[in-house]
Amino acid sequence: MSLDKELDSVESLLQKLPEKDLKQVWRILYGDGVRDLELSEKCLKLVTRYKMELVKCKFSYKEEQLRPPRLVRVALFQQKVPVPLTFPIYKVKTEMYTLAMDAVKIAAKGGANIFCFQQAWNMPYAFCSGESMPWSEYAEKAEEGATTRILQTLALENNMVIISTILERDENFEERIWNTAVVIDNHGIVLGKHQRNHVPKVECSNEPTYYCEGNTGHPVFETEFGKIGINICYERHYPLNWLGLALNGAEIVFNPCGAIGQEAELLWTVEARNAAVANGYYVCAINRIGMEIYEHEYEDEQGNLVHHEDSGLFFGSSFVSAPNGSRSPGLSRTKTGVLIAEFDLNLCRQVKDRKGLELMHRLPLYRDLLSKITATNFKPQVIKKHCQCQTT
Amino acid sequence: MSLDKELDSVESLLQKLPEKDLKQVWRILYGDGVRDLELSEKCLKLVTRYKMELVKCKFSYKEEQLRPPRLVRVALFQQKVPVPLTFPIYKVKTEMYTLAMDAVKIAAKGGANIFCFQQAWNMPYAFCSGESMPWSEYAEKAEEGATTRILQTLALENNMVIISTILERDENFEERIWNTAVVIDNHGIVLGKHQRNHVPKVECSNEPTYYCEGNTGHPVFETEFGKIGINICYERHYPLNWLGLALNGAEIVFNPCGAIGQEAELLWTVEARNAAVANGYYVCAINRIGMEIYEHEYEDEQGNLVHHEDSGLFFGSSFVSAPNGSRSPGLSRTKTGVLIAEFDLNLCRQVKDRKGLELMHRLPLYRDLLSKITATNFKPQVIKKHCQCQTT
Repeated sequence: MSLDKELDSVESLLQKLPEKDLKQVWRILYGDGVRDLELSEKCLKLVTRYKMELVKCKFSYKEEQLRPPRLVRVALFQQKVPVPLTFPIYKVKTEMYTLAMDAVKIAAKGGANIFCFQQAWNMPYAFCSGESMPWSEYAEKAEEGATTRILQTLALENNMVIISTILERDENFEERIWNTAVVIDNHGIVLGKHQRNHVPKVECSNEPTYYCEGNTGHPVFETEFGKIGINICYERHYPLNWLGLALNGAEIVFNPCGAIGQEAELLWTVEARNAAVANGYYVCAINRIGMEIYEHEYEDEQGNLVHHEDSGLFFGSSFVSAPNGSRSPGLSRTKTGVLIAEFDLNLCRQVKDRKGLELMHRLPLYRDLLSKITATNFKPQVIKKHCQCQTT
Repeated sequence: MSLDKELDSVESLLQKLPEKDLKQVWRILYGDGVRDLELSEKCLKLVTRYKMELVKCKFSYKEEQLRPPRLVRVALFQQKVPVPLTFPIYKVKTEMYTLAMDAVKIAAKGGANIFCFQQAWNMPYAFCSGESMPWSEYAEKAEEGATTRILQTLALENNMVIISTILERDENFEERIWNTAVVIDNHGIVLGKHQRNHVPKVECSNEPTYYCEGNTGHPVFETEFGKIGINICYERHYPLNWLGLALNGAEIVFNPCGAIGQEAELLWTVEARNAAVANGYYVCAINRIGMEIYEHEYEDEQGNLVHHEDSGLFFGSSFVSAPNGSRSPGLSRTKTGVLIAEFDLNLCRQVKDRKGLELMHRLPLYRDLLSKITATNFKPQVIKKHCQCQTT
C-alpha cells in the first residue's frame, strides 16, 4: 500500500469511531492525560491570518506540597519549503524566515516559553539528492550566522528560548559542516550548541557526504524554563543517545526531524514515547511536511530499486509525549502548523519516584558490558549445547 | 476513566472503521507486514475443544540469493489462574499444567518451533500482595523442578523449544529465590537459564521482598530455531537490558510479563516495538490475563492511596513485533489464548544492513559516558549562562 498523501492524520480517522469506542481506543493509544488548552483571541486570530494549523493542549499534573508546579509551554513548528527548490538560496531563506516569524508570533501570543523548529529548518532537506551543490551553501556559522542573529532578536523580543537546527559551517576548522542545534535563550543569548552524534549512511540518505559526526557529547542546556536536550532526527533510533541526555539531567528533549517513509512513520510515535518513558522526561518530536523535488533521481528509503525525483513525503505529525507515556494529538501529516503544549516539569521527578526505574538501573552492569563489547577480544555470551544432534 | 474490564482489544474496536480508513490507520499503527497464517484442521479443532482464543499470522519476508529463508513459528501462551488462589498449591499447579498441556498441543499441531509462557506462569502473580506465604512456596529448582521436568517431556515429544519463567529456589545457595527463565531445547534438554536483572521496587509491587536481582548477564541461547534471549517483565522498561541481548546476538527476544494498570497498557506495545527496531530482532511479548484476588489489601500501581483486594486487571494483549516495526494483531485483553506467528529470521540482518544503525552505534562513546557517570566525581554536562538576569 502506498503512502496516502492526502491523509490528514490517524487522529482524524479515529474520530469516526462511536464516542464510547473512541474513548477506549484513545485511552490505550494516547493515554488520558491531555486536555484542551485555552489560548488568547489574539493568538487564534494570528493563526487564521497566517493560515496555519494549530494544535493546543495541556498535560494533567499533580500538585506537590513543597514545590509549586513548574508549568512550561512549548511551541513546535512544522513547515515545508514554501518555494521551489530551484529558487536562489537567498530567496528560499528569506521565505523561511518570513514563515518562522509568523510562527514565532503565534507561539508568543500563545504564551510559549520554548520554540523549536524542525531539523535543518532554514533549507530544503536535500541530503537524499546526493548532490553537493547548492545544498552545502546553506551551511552557516552556528553562533554568528544570519539565521542565528535573526532568531536572537526574536528570542529577546518574545522572551522565548529558541532551538534552531541548521547546517553549521565551521570556517575555522577545515571548513567542516555539522548538523547542529543552536540553543538561544530568552534573553537572545546563544547558550550553546549540540552537534549531532549519529549520522545515517542509509540507502536513500548518505549524510556523511554532507556533514561530520558530532563530538559535543550529550549536553543539557539549563534555561529559565527547564533543562533541555536535543536529539537530532536519526539520533532518535538510538536508546543510548536518549539515555545520555537523561543522565545529564534533561527534563525536556526536543527531537527536530526530517522523516519520510512508511517504516519511519510506523515508528514515529513509538521511538519518541519510548524515550520519554524510559528516561523520565518530556519529548517534543517535530517533523517537516511536504515533498521536495530534486533535479537528480535517487534511491528511496525502503530499499526498493525504484528511483524517484523527490524526497518522498515528510509526514509531519509533530507531537509531545509526557514521561508517563501520555501523548498529545499530533499536528497533521500535511499542513504547516504550530503545536502549543503546556506541561508541568515536576512530573518528571514524580514519575521517577513512582516507577523507580532509576533505582534499579544497574549502570555499572552496562558500563562493564560496553567495556567488554568494545574490547578487541569480545566473545558474546552465547549458550548452546554441543552435539545436540546426538542427544535424542 | 477506569479500565474497561470488558474490552476485548483495540483491534476489535478499530474494525468498526470504514474499510478504507481502517487500512490507513492499520498501516500507520501496525504496519502492513502481516498476513493470515493457515493452520491445520487438527490444530483448529483443538482450539475449539480447549475453548482457547487463537491469533495466527505470518510476517512478510524477502528472499535472499545466498541464504534460504529461516522460517520459525513461535507460540505465545497467555492465561489466567483457572482456580481460586486459596486452593492448595498442588491443586493450582496441576490445573496450570493441564492448561499448559492443552496449549502446547495446540502449538504443536500449529507447527510451532518455540513456545513461551507468561512470567511466573505456574503460579498466581502474587507479588503485589505483600505476603510471603504461601506464594514463596511456589518456587522450584530451575533445572530439576517438577515444572521443568514436565516441560522437558513436552518439549521432546513435540520437537519444540520451551521457555518457562518461574520462581526459582536455589537450595544450594542460602535458599535464595530468583525470577528465572528456563530454556528447554527441542530435545528436552535444559539449555540454561536467565535470572532476571531488574526487579521492581514500586509502590504496588515490592518484588525484592520475594527474589534477588540476577547476575546471569544477558545470555543468548543458540537453538535450532534461532538465537533467543529473554527479557523478563519489568526489564522491558530498560533499553540497556534489551541492548545487552542484542549485543550478544539475539534474533528473537521473548518478554514474558505480568502487567497491569493503565500506564503499563499505554506503553505495552511502545516498549516492545521500540526494542525490536532499536536492536534488530523480533520481540514476542506475553502478558497474563484476569484479575487475581488476594486475602490482604494492597496499594495499587497508579500511586493512589486507595486499597484493593485484587491484583488489578492483567490486560493480556500478547503480540509479536518484527525488527522493522511491523506488529501482529494481539491476543485479547481478557481471554486465555495462543498466538502462533511465523517469521523469517533473515529479516533481522536485512533490517540491520538497510538501516545501518549498528554502523553508527558509537559504542565507545557510551562506554566512556557510563564510565564517567558511575564514577564518584561525576558532574553532568550542563551548559548554562551565569547571571542571565543581568544580560537584558
